Amino acid sequence: MRTNKLREAWAAGRGTVNGWCGIPSSFSAEIMAHQGWDSLTVDCQHGLIDYQTAVGMLQAISTTDVVPLVRVPWLEPGILMKMLDAGAYGIICPMINTPEEAEKFVSCCSYPPRGQRSFGPIRATIYAGADYPTKANDTVLKIAMVETQQAMDNLDGILSVEGLDGIYVGPADLANSMGKKPGFDPTDETVLGAIRTIVESARKHDVFAGIHCGMPAFGRRMIDDGFNFVTLMSDARFLTMQAAAMVNEFRGSEGKVGQTTGTY
Amino acid sequence: MRTNKLREAWAAGRGTVNGWCGIPSSFSAEIMAHQGWDSLTVDCQHGLIDYQTAVGMLQAISTTDVVPLVRVPWLEPGILMKMLDAGAYGIICPMINTPEEAEKFVSCCSYPPRGQRSFGPIRATIYAGADYPTKANDTVLKIAMVETQQAMDNLDGILSVEGLDGIYVGPADLANSMGKKPGFDPTDETVLGAIRTIVESARKHDVFAGIHCGMPAFGRRMIDDGFNFVTLMSDARFLTMQAAAMVNEFRGSEGKVGQTTGTY
Amino acid sequence: MRTNKLREAWAAGRGTVNGWCGIPSSFSAEIMAHQGWDSLTVDCQHGLIDYQTAVGMLQAISTTDVVPLVRVPWLEPGILMKMLDAGAYGIICPMINTPEEAEKFVSCCSYPPRGQRSFGPIRATIYAGADYPTKANDTVLKIAMVETQQAMDNLDGILSVEGLDGIYVGPADLANSMGKKPGFDPTDETVLGAIRTIVESARKHDVFAGIHCGMPAFGRRMIDDGFNFVTLMSDARFLTMQAAAMVNEFRGSEGKVGQTTGTY
Amino acid sequence: MRTNKLREAWAAGRGTVNGWCGIPSSFSAEIMAHQGWDSLTVDCQHGLIDYQTAVGMLQAISTTDVVPLVRVPWLEPGILMKMLDAGAYGIICPMINTPEEAEKFVSCCSYPPRGQRSFGPIRATIYAGADYPTKANDTVLKIAMVETQQAMDNLDGILSVEGLDGIYVGPADLANSMGKKPGFDPTDETVLGAIRTIVESARKHDVFAGIHCGMPAFGRRMIDDGFNFVTLMSDARFLTMQAAAMVNEFRGSEGKVGQTTGTY
Amino acid sequence: MRTNKLREAWAAGRGTVNGWCGIPSSFSAEIMAHQGWDSLTVDCQHGLIDYQTAVGMLQAISTTDVVPLVRVPWLEPGILMKMLDAGAYGIICPMINTPEEAEKFVSCCSYPPRGQRSFGPIRATIYAGADYPTKANDTVLKIAMVETQQAMDNLDGILSVEGLDGIYVGPADLANSMGKKPGFDPTDETVLGAIRTIVESARKHDVFAGIHCGMPAFGRRMIDDGFNFVTLMSDARFLTMQAAAMVNEFRGSEGKVGQTTGTY
Amino acid sequence: MRTNKLREAWAAGRGTVNGWCGIPSSFSAEIMAHQGWDSLTVDCQHGLIDYQTAVGMLQAISTTDVVPLVRVPWLEPGILMKMLDAGAYGIICPMINTPEEAEKFVSCCSYPPRGQRSFGPIRATIYAGADYPTKANDTVLKIAMVETQQAMDNLDGILSVEGLDGIYVGPADLANSMGKKPGFDPTDETVLGAIRTIVESARKHDVFAGIHCGMPAFGRRMIDDGFNFVTLMSDARFLTMQAAAMVNEFRGSEGKVGQTTGTY
Repeated sequence: MRTNKLREAWAAGRGTVNGWCGIPSSFSAEIMAHQGWDSLTVDCQHGLIDYQTAVGMLQAISTTDVVPLVRVPWLEPGILMKMLDAGAYGIICPMINTPEEAEKFVSCCSYPPRGQRSFGPIRATIYAGADYPTKANDTVLKIAMVETQQAMDNLDGILSVEGLDGIYVGPADLANSMGKKPGFDPTDETVLGAIRTIVESARKHDVFAGIHCGMPAFGRRMIDDGFNFVTLMSDARFLTMQAAAMVNEFRGSEGKVGQTTGTY
Repeated sequence: MRTNKLREAWAAGRGTVNGWCGIPSSFSAEIMAHQGWDSLTVDCQHGLIDYQTAVGMLQAISTTDVVPLVRVPWLEPGILMKMLDAGAYGIICPMINTPEEAEKFVSCCSYPPRGQRSFGPIRATIYAGADYPTKANDTVLKIAMVETQQAMDNLDGILSVEGLDGIYVGPADLANSMGKKPGFDPTDETVLGAIRTIVESARKHDVFAGIHCGMPAFGRRMIDDGFNFVTLMSDARFLTMQAAAMVNEFRGSEGKVGQTTGTY
Repeated sequence: MRTNKLREAWAAGRGTVNGWCGIPSSFSAEIMAHQGWDSLTVDCQHGLIDYQTAVGMLQAISTTDVVPLVRVPWLEPGILMKMLDAGAYGIICPMINTPEEAEKFVSCCSYPPRGQRSFGPIRATIYAGADYPTKANDTVLKIAMVETQQAMDNLDGILSVEGLDGIYVGPADLANSMGKKPGFDPTDETVLGAIRTIVESARKHDVFAGIHCGMPAFGRRMIDDGFNFVTLMSDARFLTMQAAAMVNEFRGSEGKVGQTTGTY
Repeated sequence: MRTNKLREAWAAGRGTVNGWCGIPSSFSAEIMAHQGWDSLTVDCQHGLIDYQTAVGMLQAISTTDVVPLVRVPWLEPGILMKMLDAGAYGIICPMINTPEEAEKFVSCCSYPPRGQRSFGPIRATIYAGADYPTKANDTVLKIAMVETQQAMDNLDGILSVEGLDGIYVGPADLANSMGKKPGFDPTDETVLGAIRTIVESARKHDVFAGIHCGMPAFGRRMIDDGFNFVTLMSDARFLTMQAAAMVNEFRGSEGKVGQTTGTY
Repeated sequence: MRTNKLREAWAAGRGTVNGWCGIPSSFSAEIMAHQGWDSLTVDCQHGLIDYQTAVGMLQAISTTDVVPLVRVPWLEPGILMKMLDAGAYGIICPMINTPEEAEKFVSCCSYPPRGQRSFGPIRATIYAGADYPTKANDTVLKIAMVETQQAMDNLDGILSVEGLDGIYVGPADLANSMGKKPGFDPTDETVLGAIRTIVESARKHDVFAGIHCGMPAFGRRMIDDGFNFVTLMSDARFLTMQAAAMVNEFRGSEGKVGQTTGTY
Repeated sequence: MRTNKLREAWAAGRGTVNGWCGIPSSFSAEIMAHQGWDSLTVDCQHGLIDYQTAVGMLQAISTTDVVPLVRVPWLEPGILMKMLDAGAYGIICPMINTPEEAEKFVSCCSYPPRGQRSFGPIRATIYAGADYPTKANDTVLKIAMVETQQAMDNLDGILSVEGLDGIYVGPADLANSMGKKPGFDPTDETVLGAIRTIVESARKHDVFAGIHCGMPAFGRRMIDDGFNFVTLMSDARFLTMQAAAMVNEFRGSEGKVGQTTGTY
């Protein structure tokens, strides 16, 4: 089975950088796949992307050796197992707030005896190799999002679920849940404190940890703080930023425009 | 944030007319958006429409100032939040039969602290404006379908759920659930009585009320009876009716054909 | 090979009624296919429809025994032959103004020795049967649009091209070309005169004749005047008309809206 | 209403053969529909197929009188009811492990009073006829997958659920769940014993039984053992097998290649 | 009819900035449409975009008042007229090298008596208004690309074609054709000289002129040199640049990656 | 630039085997890409495949190192250059009957000074590398189909066109054009003689030669006779054959069915 290069990097202590795809297009995904990311996540939760489009994007990412991840819309077995069969090498599942939810998530992602994943890796065997059925449980990453106060309160229980490979911090939802303003690269001490708590707990439980960031400097800092991987914004944000910057530079004194999509 | 013109109309006591899209095409949606409706609902429950297609239809509706609504397939958090992120200005959720289901529905549609909606309004900020995150809870309509005897029995409880903006009557399912024949524009007194009960209860709880109708005259009557909005059939029905009428008029004495899709 | 029911009807002296699909959706096409038309035309010229979508629409029409026709965008061999391979039982080609163009059109639609059609009826054999290759030349209808003054001037030459099965009048373009206002169901005597000339010439050359109409009454009149088939408006028009009528009836004294797409 | 030819065959004691579609294409589905299967299943669980694509495939199958079935991704009401509205004449639901799950499944598929299916058969009435609403409950097949040890333990309870028409054995998951290697056409006695138990129990409860097979000989044997229908592999497997065989035959002594997708 | 805001700006002497869409997605197009461009061009020549996708992108652009332009793949009547019917407010046609080609181009884009455009503005009337048929010839921009030595040699003839509204310089092809290296923002004096010649000739003939640029500063300079509009790179380039910049900033001393798509 | 492995094999005297994709699906293309072919051709002429779908298929093929070829619908510059920009490593162009057509074909595929190909290799640089612009002319294969008596008559002229890399025999059209029955693996001596003439002429002109075959044995024989590459049937045929064989084996004495698509 094709190895999971994220596991290799993290085992070797190397922090990785993850790209984020929210534009529903296999071409934008293919462009992203050539820009040097260690992994790319097809975001089927907040991204404007449905299953059939996601399959095309997974194929586009597979034109390179960038590791393909998928964020599913919710902890719902149907879509979750479909994404695994389509060849995702890791699933990020939003809003895991209790150990029971974490257990359900891991179970859906794991073949028996560990879990209840149904058998039929139609594209996964093509991408990964014929021995996928026996090695998938140990190769595919199961990453739970920790992004609410409730999840913070249940952190040890969540991190204790056997087979949960990693957790992923969504700072916007986490801040929201704590009554703070959502956004990338938080400066609020309460939120930063929660993030520190999460990464330290993850290390203690030998669980990998990732976080969604905005700018590279903040991402670097998070790696230095112990995170195994960081995401930098998203394709939609890159397009927005660069287009707005070009127009504004062109217009100069004519007055600035654009960048209306600034808060997500 | 772009105002919700339905809220404005209803606050001003003006009843509105809603169009219904079941054909999976951004072009038929754009045609509908130019025919004078106050709002259009992309029907992802009984319509032949999936998420990715719905996004294109929401874009097509956004070429006008018609208010875009979505009926989700079921009370399932994944698709529900995806539709909000895609810019729906109101969600109609089928088969809300208990206060607990109504509460779950409102919670999925509301950012903290009211609810558990996850943060990432990727297209919603483009459609609505950069202040969407702070104003969405008060702008986006959360409309529960009341369409079973069980829902009738729980009506006060459902209408008491904080943050539930409106209810929507599905006469076909309501009739079915009462052992009556499903159809538009019911004449059965039991069903009509139930409809009256619903709209009166809604008024009492200051909750908006809408109903799916067939012909304009019945829709008018429903507005007069206190409903805030009515739907008239659907795009698929319009196409069926007009095409069959034209063919039959052409054929004349040759014998009538068509209209085989008459009951939905 | 599945017979071409249009040829049968016309041979028997029965005028047929053709539906027109401009909405790019296999579902609207399937709805249309159940309303009693003898044939349906997937309009890839002015319809909002491309090849891949057209294939799905041809499949939808094939769920019935309605005869599937395609109007190609232009006299361009690539798309023309692709539509034949996809199973169209007739091709309507716009803007055939000279005998040379008519000859090129027929040649592209006919296997050797009559023409230069390339061999590969990938879906056509599925739809029509395994003997398609030997019978297609005699079954598939080749229909040239006569819609300019230049075509009028070359009418005899065009109608004399061997293998041209029919001509189709586009009254809008014909009127435009004669300096008249385009529209359905012309009342202008010059245009009506031209239409009469066309159908009479077609009869004389034993070539079938069809015409794009608006209302059924005008269609009936054209059949009475000798046309073999008439089209009544289009799916997009039906949807527009019926939706606008319903909204306007609902609004009543509130003021009319809609129907902005009235001229096509 | 169009009859369900599977019910007719099974009532007459004739075993049927079911094709399996995992390639997301209405054209591959149409090809399959012409190869002599009694029924075709659009596999939305392990197949690479989403709802919108499935609709196109159902249309393609409807160009023939092959009975269209759908396997849904999971016991989730939203997608399940959407597939029924799209015209599926049978639903295969994976991982039904308890009588409660079987009851929920049947309820979602049945109109009141038997169940809670919501009313809106938008394409089903087109495919089946205008009397679909009153006859669907008795026509559409509700088939639960029995594919775990837990389901085996609950077999009598599952088979006793009123309105459950059939069960379907997934040998790969069943073997997996019993600690055996997943695969088609099992030879392991424990798995074969379980299969015998299932079919015998089904017969006893007057519930139809089907099973997913690999080769025709094993399928024949299963029919002889009492199964009402068998599936033979899938379109994806056929394509893989035949392509690999052709390449290998061509290469001969050059060395074999291909068939890397062999285990699903 | 909706006015063409480019004509208004240019008539008022204001240079405009045009965005360029090569990613086949209505969402990336909608993002672009909100960044402050005066117009956006859906590039169906070198962009990875086909007709059906382009329609969705035109709809997305129509959610704003940004002027929608289309670059067609080639001077081929079929696709050219389809794009006009879909509501493009300007067509950029590549490789117009002779006055005859320019004449054919203008003719295809113009209704009689000026040209031979066929009548059927199915979406154009929805976007532009019911008077589109009478005003389209004067509103829609017909812009010929001047991008070869041959076109330079025929410049006066091309610019003299009645009804040609503008010309557009493709510096990459122009350089290529002159034996120079293709690229944005040329510094080669021969190429710059040719560009100067073009804009001066255009001014002399009262024909609008645009040019494809890279950076805003060069675009500004071109406006100052007399061009009416400039394009800045493309969405695909923006995404590439920003993603690569973020990754490289993150990696720092680890070594640069990405930007492999640098030359288009 | 990524090398063209077909050129390498042929230079080394190794005959290659080409797969043929007519099913419009990136998944069937990805399956094909893993079965050991040296190259795969996305057939946009007789395949049921349009540009946008072809792009997804090229991406799917690019997940392997199989060489991606495209057969365009016709000698039309628009689609031809679009396929090159999308990353095709070879173009097969149907119905090249004269040296003038061959010259036009090569010119459309070649950057100046050799040809008139327009500059904008948007996906080609991603697939091939940043030096694509300077090396494409020598890397991408330009292969003309020789499939008519007229082409036979002009064979030396066609083969003499500078920059034409290869020719491809379409036996069905060739037979058709000679008044013989079309089909794979001809046994007619006239057709076989023509094939021999073609391959010998190609060798003499140092032009590569390929041919569309049915069974591997005939393909082998063609390689032995001097062809550089052979195609074996197509994905659609493989699916048809294998499905029909399985059903027929299952049915046994019940009577054979299927294989109705046998002649293409």
